[in-house]
Amino acid sequence: MDCKTPTISKTVMTEMVMPNDTNPLHNLMGGNLMRWMDVAGGICARRHAERVCVTASVDTVSFKSPIKLGEIVTIIAKVTRVFTTSLEIHIEVFAEGVASNGRRKSNEAYFTFVSVDEYGNKLKVPQLATETPEEEAQYESAMRRREMRLILAKRMKPEQSTALKALFLGKE
Amino acid sequence: MDCKTPTISKTVMTEMVMPNDTNPLHNLMGGNLMRWMDVAGGICARRHAERVCVTASVDTVSFKSPIKLGEIVTIIAKVTRVFTTSLEIHIEVFAEGVASNGRRKSNEAYFTFVSVDEYGNKLKVPQLATETPEEEAQYESAMRRREMRLILAKRMKPEQSTALKALFLGKE
Amino acid sequence: MDCKTPTISKTVMTEMVMPNDTNPLHNLMGGNLMRWMDVAGGICARRHAERVCVTASVDTVSFKSPIKLGEIVTIIAKVTRVFTTSLEIHIEVFAEGVASNGRRKSNEAYFTFVSVDEYGNKLKVPQLATETPEEEAQYESAMRRREMRLILAKRMKPEQSTALKALFLGKE
Amino acid sequence: MDCKTPTISKTVMTEMVMPNDTNPLHNLMGGNLMRWMDVAGGICARRHAERVCVTASVDTVSFKSPIKLGEIVTIIAKVTRVFTTSLEIHIEVFAEGVASNGRRKSNEAYFTFVSVDEYGNKLKVPQLATETPEEEAQYESAMRRREMRLILAKRMKPEQSTALKALFLGKE
Amino acid sequence: MDCKTPTISKTVMTEMVMPNDTNPLHNLMGGNLMRWMDVAGGICARRHAERVCVTASVDTVSFKSPIKLGEIVTIIAKVTRVFTTSLEIHIEVFAEGVASNGRRKSNEAYFTFVSVDEYGNKLKVPQLATETPEEEAQYESAMRRREMRLILAKRMKPEQSTALKALFLGKE
Amino acid sequence: MDCKTPTISKTVMTEMVMPNDTNPLHNLMGGNLMRWMDVAGGICARRHAERVCVTASVDTVSFKSPIKLGEIVTIIAKVTRVFTTSLEIHIEVFAEGVASNGRRKSNEAYFTFVSVDEYGNKLKVPQLATETPEEEAQYESAMRRREMRLILAKRMKPEQSTALKALFLGKE
Repeated sequence: MDCKTPTISKTVMTEMVMPNDTNPLHNLMGGNLMRWMDVAGGICARRHAERVCVTASVDTVSFKSPIKLGEIVTIIAKVTRVFTTSLEIHIEVFAEGVASNGRRKSNEAYFTFVSVDEYGNKLKVPQLATETPEEEAQYESAMRRREMRLILAKRMKPEQSTALKALFLGKE
Repeated sequence: MDCKTPTISKTVMTEMVMPNDTNPLHNLMGGNLMRWMDVAGGICARRHAERVCVTASVDTVSFKSPIKLGEIVTIIAKVTRVFTTSLEIHIEVFAEGVASNGRRKSNEAYFTFVSVDEYGNKLKVPQLATETPEEEAQYESAMRRREMRLILAKRMKPEQSTALKALFLGKE
Repeated sequence: MDCKTPTISKTVMTEMVMPNDTNPLHNLMGGNLMRWMDVAGGICARRHAERVCVTASVDTVSFKSPIKLGEIVTIIAKVTRVFTTSLEIHIEVFAEGVASNGRRKSNEAYFTFVSVDEYGNKLKVPQLATETPEEEAQYESAMRRREMRLILAKRMKPEQSTALKALFLGKE
Repeated sequence: MDCKTPTISKTVMTEMVMPNDTNPLHNLMGGNLMRWMDVAGGICARRHAERVCVTASVDTVSFKSPIKLGEIVTIIAKVTRVFTTSLEIHIEVFAEGVASNGRRKSNEAYFTFVSVDEYGNKLKVPQLATETPEEEAQYESAMRRREMRLILAKRMKPEQSTALKALFLGKE
Repeated sequence: MDCKTPTISKTVMTEMVMPNDTNPLHNLMGGNLMRWMDVAGGICARRHAERVCVTASVDTVSFKSPIKLGEIVTIIAKVTRVFTTSLEIHIEVFAEGVASNGRRKSNEAYFTFVSVDEYGNKLKVPQLATETPEEEAQYESAMRRREMRLILAKRMKPEQSTALKALFLGKE
Repeated sequence: MDCKTPTISKTVMTEMVMPNDTNPLHNLMGGNLMRWMDVAGGICARRHAERVCVTASVDTVSFKSPIKLGEIVTIIAKVTRVFTTSLEIHIEVFAEGVASNGRRKSNEAYFTFVSVDEYGNKLKVPQLATETPEEEAQYESAMRRREMRLILAKRMKPEQSTALKALFLGKE
């Protein structure tokens, strides 16, 4: 089972905000954006794992600036770390209007996917070979995000965490 | 501006999982569920605020057991606390098959919405009057979840938090 | 095969009227509302029968007041009577705008569903145990509605009906 | 304001039954068929009225034989009678599989539409000029169906009806 | 295997332009129209072949006049010629507004479909029996269009064509 | 008005083939693919023009190998040449299954878009600055494709064409 770089599975998705995607203020509804992020993340995970991948968890997403009807949304998904049978995917969202003052970053989030066979059994995922300093930084910080997820899902006690405990004690 | 109970705005949404909502294993895709949760939460927030409410943030969601094609999904959304111009909504998801061995709880999450006018300006939201011990407990713990959100969004330093710091020191 | 109350299978569906649901006057199209009513009714029937239920007939529906783009539609479906392999479901539709002057009743209709196995063969349905005077009244009047359906479907001659004949003679 | 024949506004709609249109038995859901019938009827009414027409009522629809996934549905809508500001439309549904043993008739129903201006005010509709014996028969029986609708909507007392009273007394 | 006339499989599809079908100028997007044309053509081909037919090619389509939100689109598909396992279908598109100044022709194109079995193997298609001079003319010109398709797909050299060569030499 | 490279507006769209996108053989319908190509092309054109662009024409598209349910479709759109108010866009389609034997090229086509203002009036488009030999080759051959389009649309006589005439005389 080979090692793969994040570039191999990088996924770019482009969508136009249509009337049915919007709320009464004519802005993209948060739930629709999350659905697009989930599809992009699932494709990215599946490209790396070469198996169907299902969503395991979604980290906190916040919605700051609205994306308007008719704007173009670009979603970029990249694998940041592999944990035996699961993959953490970093998803960035960019929005752009008709007049191209360039894209503006709109959102970002980390999604976790699990590689499964046709019966839903978990499968081992190929390892990740980071290439750039940015990929390396994402890889490193993934462990802290994973601890946070386990604590929030009540599958780890806060005092058992290493990186997070330091964070909350203001020592990091 | 009156005080309102969580019961007044409680929202129940029922959906059947259709073919286009599923992944290649014929299970509901995580992103579609999040979209439904967002719609239910937005309706609940709007019923309390009596104004259009837009999604501000979604706390970590985890997906444990799959929901299958043809199953019925019930989403229940309730206001847990109001913070000046925003509302925290607790969203529970239940799934049931044809043979009614009763519903099983599938997911839950906290979404935050902001009440806005037609130009997107934030508006003050009516206060919440809790009635039951469960509503009271949700109200109390909302402050800790809010601190967590602010820390994760890097708008508060971990050492400034009160409840969370205690949590990570194992004192709570 | 147990008896069940109407409460057990009562189904609440909430939808927001989106642009694609509307006609050129920006009001919900009648056909879309009937589709939602059919889904809610089918879920309610299936919850009572614990089997897949398919639409057998829809009684006259009338559309008085328009429901506008962006309004919230609540559909409440309840079993009113069981006839061996079929169920009559009463479906009420409520609409509400942003400013909550409370919900207004928009429509109501009776749908009939048949419980079927995977090959489409009809199956016996558990009996209904009414609990309230309103449920009892619905149960009683269901027989008259059934006669009307049979006459309209030309499966009963008008003079064979009991309740209806009386109605048209002005004696009821 | 001219008189028009039913042929001028006759509307033919053809749809293929797609996965998302079906229930768990892979048959077209009744609600989806009603939505298509409503669209076809609305287009037919609008072609006759030359104004936007909105659904006023749908007469009893019954669903006898299932229409399967992948089958082709043909919906034919024709004006049967005009009542000042409203139109009665007869809608027939035909289904056909891949092997063309010819179409089979699946359903039929009468829908009523009202011609409205942009503010929703009712508008006078051009009269109907029937041409064939079948159109003439539809035109004649429309009055009885209208009485039935008014009685069911509780806007006419059964004993006030002419044609229907005779029908239930077994004299027609 | 019988011969069939174009009338037997002629397919009429009627659609209303809904908000999600339109671009930011509120006109029907070209891609949506092509999707409707493909569905209508596929149904027409299947009615003639009495087997599932899949799209093989689409000839140049041009979009001259916009079709607006709320307008009605009528698509008429007719078989023009059969080539062993494939069928050429002529598809005409008409648009009409609310005020019926009659329909205007909007587009037309030729689509080619192939008749296939459940494994995707090509199947022989019943021959076509033209009846009118217009059908005869379409039948004749189909050979020139077929040569053009083969040249554009680089499966025929331009100098091998008969009709087309004459066309470009200005002799036809 | 600046000159822009094709890279600036290059658009990548990724879609997963869902049940409702497929024909009864569970393969992506040609019309759905054309819709996606049109959206990708329209976004690419708009990024170059910095104005809304509408589809003017679609050159012949052929569908060789089927794309299956659950496969991932990647659509890449690039500007090849600008003609005063219109842009020619080259659109390539790639398909990939779960097991990544790499992508396979599925289709390609040239679409033409016109840049318009809010009233639909044509607008001048920024010039294109090709950078690579492949972009240069596309730029050169665009003139021949344009002549072909004009001839097919009967807006140019075949004998007036320069490049095409040579092609059919076997001299190129």
